[in-house]
Amino acid sequence: MMAELPPFHTKTVFLTAAACDAQLEMPLPAFTQAVIDIATEHANILGIGFDRMIKDNAAWVLSRVSSVMKNYPACNEEYTMTTWITTLNRICSERYVRFDNARGETLGYVRTVWAAIDVDRRRPVNLLTLFPDGLPMPDIAKPDLTLGRIPRVENPDIIRQHRFLAADIDCNRHVNTNRYVEQVINQWSVDFYDIHRVERFDIVFHAEALYGEEVKVVSRQEENTGTVEIIAPDGRLCTQSQIVFSDR
Amino acid sequence: MMAELPPFHTKTVFLTAAACDAQLEMPLPAFTQAVIDIATEHANILGIGFDRMIKDNAAWVLSRVSSVMKNYPACNEEYTMTTWITTLNRICSERYVRFDNARGETLGYVRTVWAAIDVDRRRPVNLLTLFPDGLPMPDIAKPDLTLGRIPRVENPDIIRQHRFLAADIDCNRHVNTNRYVEQVINQWSVDFYDIHRVERFDIVFHAEALYGEEVKVVSRQEENTGTVEIIAPDGRLCTQSQIVFSDR
Repeated sequence: MMAELPPFHTKTVFLTAAACDAQLEMPLPAFTQAVIDIATEHANILGIGFDRMIKDNAAWVLSRVSSVMKNYPACNEEYTMTTWITTLNRICSERYVRFDNARGETLGYVRTVWAAIDVDRRRPVNLLTLFPDGLPMPDIAKPDLTLGRIPRVENPDIIRQHRFLAADIDCNRHVNTNRYVEQVINQWSVDFYDIHRVERFDIVFHAEALYGEEVKVVSRQEENTGTVEIIAPDGRLCTQSQIVFSDR
Repeated sequence: MMAELPPFHTKTVFLTAAACDAQLEMPLPAFTQAVIDIATEHANILGIGFDRMIKDNAAWVLSRVSSVMKNYPACNEEYTMTTWITTLNRICSERYVRFDNARGETLGYVRTVWAAIDVDRRRPVNLLTLFPDGLPMPDIAKPDLTLGRIPRVENPDIIRQHRFLAADIDCNRHVNTNRYVEQVINQWSVDFYDIHRVERFDIVFHAEALYGEEVKVVSRQEENTGTVEIIAPDGRLCTQSQIVFSDR
């Protein structure tokens, strides 16, 4: 049974001009969403998606996304995403996504970390109990995208207020994941992105922001590294992220 | 030559949970983007897309979107979009998009109005000069989605400030079309959308908002009709829109 499950899932997409940012590349929020979407598709194919999880009153929760990209998918070109699971333990499952361009060149890698929660009790569920037979994990080399703790932002350069409204809310009535990424991106200007590329991006999801909440987006840049936090009005830390910029 | 060009273009898409709003439907901003994307794809197939236009130093500009939807594409279901051109005159070309669900039932129709501009002079271009041989326009019945002038908002209920930032900017360095739609949607609450559906939506694009501008989003609701304007800091009217809500 296990042997029949496809350990890889691949999808090729054409990036239209309408889907690009001012630098004619795939924007980071859409990039993150594409990673979540292909992970979801593969989970459904493997029979470990929403429908399977909810039978045990469980749901997948994304806890971290880390990416290292030499280049992003470019305007009016096809790109291919390939995803596979690399880890399964009690606490989390890790999944990688590789991005290739139409010439078969690898643009970069993304690592995602998923946990499962009991949807009523909002408590972690043991993944080894959910999947006693394991999950298909191909034995191939992968880049090390394990990043350390993101430091708290001290002495921020920018403190910006942002209120999450109706268009920001997803099917779980939480703020949509790509909306956090947008607010991280918004700490720098279009002109800045004209001369800098996001080479490395890391975001950790700690707590959900809710409809109507006015969050603080707090950031500091030191040399080529930016650190950004999204903080809810009651002080809870929603997300932490770190960007390493490179010159274009 | 003309006879070989496909007068219709069709695309079927699966709507994932991640792509849905809190009401488990396709959100209006994504809906508008999908309409623009399928129009762009068909224009490319017909050889009247960006590449063709720029040879005459011209570009398409979207001036109006009007939709009447009985229902929106639903979560975890396929929907099919079918588009065709209905009008070509000196000033504009009109194009319809029909949405059907997986059972072949029509969910509703969208009418889009496009003009062409000279990209340097930012002045209208005569479409009959650009396309002297005409464009394929199938002779089929279409619902009348011609809406009148949207009245100006007098005595607004809500005046909200919103600043367009890096994540809002498209490949032309203007605010992305679906960002205006988001700001229109944001004049009502998630709770309001739980009990009301957007049955009719109409948006007219007058002037582009720019990066960094803090616009005013001004609206008034009378009975089941909401009228929304986005106004730039210098007073220029960027968009006008009108929504007719129905009870769920």
